Amino acid sequence: MKKYDVIVVGGGPAGGAVAAPLAEAGRRVMLIEARAFGGVCPLSGCNPKKALMSGAEAVRAASAMLGSGLSGRVSVDWADLMRFKQSFVDPVPAKARKAYGDKGIDTRIGSARLVGPHEVAVDGESFSAPHICLCVGQKPSPLPVPGGEGMPVSDDFLSLKTLPRRIIFIGGGFIAFEFAHIARQAGAEVTLLNRSDRVLRQFDPVLTQELVEASRAAGIDVRLNAPVQGVEQTASGYRIICGERGETALKADMAFNCTGRTAAIDGLGLDAAGVEYGQDGIAVNSRMQSVSNPDIYAVGDVADQGPALTPVATIQGQVAAANILHPNSAQVDYTGIPGVCFTLPPLAGAGLLESDAKQLGLDFTVRETDLAGSFSWKRLNERFGKARILIDEPGDRILGAHILGHNAEEIINLFALVIRQEIPLSRVKETVWAYPTCGYELKYML
Amino acid sequence: MKKYDVIVVGGGPAGGAVAAPLAEAGRRVMLIEARAFGGVCPLSGCNPKKALMSGAEAVRAASAMLGSGLSGRVSVDWADLMRFKQSFVDPVPAKARKAYGDKGIDTRIGSARLVGPHEVAVDGESFSAPHICLCVGQKPSPLPVPGGEGMPVSDDFLSLKTLPRRIIFIGGGFIAFEFAHIARQAGAEVTLLNRSDRVLRQFDPVLTQELVEASRAAGIDVRLNAPVQGVEQTASGYRIICGERGETALKADMAFNCTGRTAAIDGLGLDAAGVEYGQDGIAVNSRMQSVSNPDIYAVGDVADQGPALTPVATIQGQVAAANILHPNSAQVDYTGIPGVCFTLPPLAGAGLLESDAKQLGLDFTVRETDLAGSFSWKRLNERFGKARILIDEPGDRILGAHILGHNAEEIINLFALVIRQEIPLSRVKETVWAYPTCGYELKYML
Repeated sequence: MKKYDVIVVGGGPAGGAVAAPLAEAGRRVMLIEARAFGGVCPLSGCNPKKALMSGAEAVRAASAMLGSGLSGRVSVDWADLMRFKQSFVDPVPAKARKAYGDKGIDTRIGSARLVGPHEVAVDGESFSAPHICLCVGQKPSPLPVPGGEGMPVSDDFLSLKTLPRRIIFIGGGFIAFEFAHIARQAGAEVTLLNRSDRVLRQFDPVLTQELVEASRAAGIDVRLNAPVQGVEQTASGYRIICGERGETALKADMAFNCTGRTAAIDGLGLDAAGVEYGQDGIAVNSRMQSVSNPDIYAVGDVADQGPALTPVATIQGQVAAANILHPNSAQVDYTGIPGVCFTLPPLAGAGLLESDAKQLGLDFTVRETDLAGSFSWKRLNERFGKARILIDEPGDRILGAHILGHNAEEIINLFALVIRQEIPLSRVKETVWAYPTCGYELKYML
Repeated sequence: MKKYDVIVVGGGPAGGAVAAPLAEAGRRVMLIEARAFGGVCPLSGCNPKKALMSGAEAVRAASAMLGSGLSGRVSVDWADLMRFKQSFVDPVPAKARKAYGDKGIDTRIGSARLVGPHEVAVDGESFSAPHICLCVGQKPSPLPVPGGEGMPVSDDFLSLKTLPRRIIFIGGGFIAFEFAHIARQAGAEVTLLNRSDRVLRQFDPVLTQELVEASRAAGIDVRLNAPVQGVEQTASGYRIICGERGETALKADMAFNCTGRTAAIDGLGLDAAGVEYGQDGIAVNSRMQSVSNPDIYAVGDVADQGPALTPVATIQGQVAAANILHPNSAQVDYTGIPGVCFTLPPLAGAGLLESDAKQLGLDFTVRETDLAGSFSWKRLNERFGKARILIDEPGDRILGAHILGHNAEEIINLFALVIRQEIPLSRVKETVWAYPTCGYELKYML
């Protein structure tokens, strides 16, 4: 049985963030990946989605300016856009694997299973290490209704050869919204079905409501309080039964289950290694250590802690590596980590939600600014845009920032810095921003 | 003779920034504007330019994605784009004047002239005040060559009814470059003539060279070391003689003198009030006070201090107002003020240039990052992008940031905050940025 210092299971951003610093520190590391090195983010998540969004953004920007200085028309050529997207995806696995090899990390493709507290089996072979780090991510949650099993999911959307005319996205999270906007700009008739009246729960509810309006204005049929009761495959596509009493039937050429993702722990052998887990994934402490087996770490989306975002996987991985090298030396600080839903316009947030701040009993006010009425958005004919900033005025601090609108994804980085580094409000206010830029609007947001 | 506490000459951003806080503090303020309230920025500068840029950006974004997911074609309809631009300009003067009136400020349209240290004449009427603030801005410098007098300038470009087929921009500053990019994307054949081999001297020279390449790749005929020797009007347009010995003659339907701007102090009566001035404008100290007459202030582009940017005029105005209210209470801090040349892609900078840092004898390194090869730029088929960050590593400080590339105008705001507030490099590095965004690239820039 081959011995390593650390075995890392999962070759995505989380696994890479753990493995690299350990190898650099001279540890013998084995990195095992079930499918392709790189992980969800560059292969079937953040990057492919944003590559598709490049086409959607250009179509939308051009159509917004039609009659305001622009004439003509551009449209998405789906097959072409998928090829463009794929040009970013294809080189990743080999490149990633080679990069790990160059760092002295042993890599292997195969399904890993824990067979003891310090032992991993891969295709009949066994490896042992005093520390094991699990970075296997999440997979789509099944839709628990008749016919819901085996429905197409996000990976299927990302490999659609042609764009169906009518598409239904089931779900009200990142994936459903982002894909709905891409498909809509690409020319599809798009319906989004959400179980309740609240979508994108990790974001400010005033802004998610505004995003629902913006999505509808873009031609997406967003239906709230429309829980799916059944899925039927028909000769030409799908028939989705929804509504509290299943009172509505919707037809589409294609339908996707985007209701959520759950930790990909089936068959991982967690019980054999004494690793506790729950609905949200593997139970870890703030050092990313299994709460029940301190020699095992879990990092990234599979861990039950922190938002499922690539930059979070990265810092969790760094923390796990630090703790493996120097026990109890590091903890993850989630302060001010920004999140973005890449819709058109995008929705972004960092720091506390209004509801969080209330629950903490903090003394704060919410400054709401209309961005759509401000020059940097009006000049693009943007119709939706709003900022909601939580300010603890006597404490001279910004507690949270929530922004919907063109370039929200960039502006939120300013708040990520300010909130995480606790830069006093007064100092942010006296900063001089470039004009005319979207970031300049901080002058009025604060 | 009517008496005021303060007379402000010039109703642009500078004048407004002085007048408003004085009025709010209960001072009787007279604000005199020669043409239209609002000033260059919203009437014939930043905003109209950026409104035109909206069309140019959309055309460029769409054309960059052609064959990579987009088909069809959009083009600028110049008359339409000018109407769109004008829709932002037209409401400004009345709205600005009303806003001043609402604050209790007396406003007047007319040409103001100093007739003594505390006295201003407007159309034969006289007003006096213990403090006078001059905010009259700049006007285009004449082109001192045969035929150069009376050439069209930036205002003329901004009111072009139709787009000429062939345009020559003379100059290598903000205005020449920004207009060249707008006109090029709008479909004109564009030539830019620069006297020397250095353009945009306030920016990093490595990046301005890259911008010259990007401009050429966009089809702009950028000619360096091409000083203009003579201008001839022909039946169909212009004939421009350029080159060290006037060896080249270029024909165009239209040509613009964009060689620079100088303080608009002709006929302002500075001598009558004992106000010193030089080539760069009215000589002021760091309190924005005339160095020769402490009762007179000069703010904004007309002052010989600070870059000619709207946000600078604003902070200078606030400083002047504070000093009028409380003598010697405030000074202008120019640290980390960002500047942007809104080309395609934009060029931005904040903090020290490499040459400044060398001159100061600082110990620093320059980190150069290729942005064009990074996902957030590649996904838009952006071909040009580079960042150069000046870092004082032992001192844990970022000294200067220089960025060419899509969204440079937004990223630079992050550096404006970091440099002005002296946020340690180590704290910037451990901030978590949203992914995938352009700002995320700070992870690799530092």
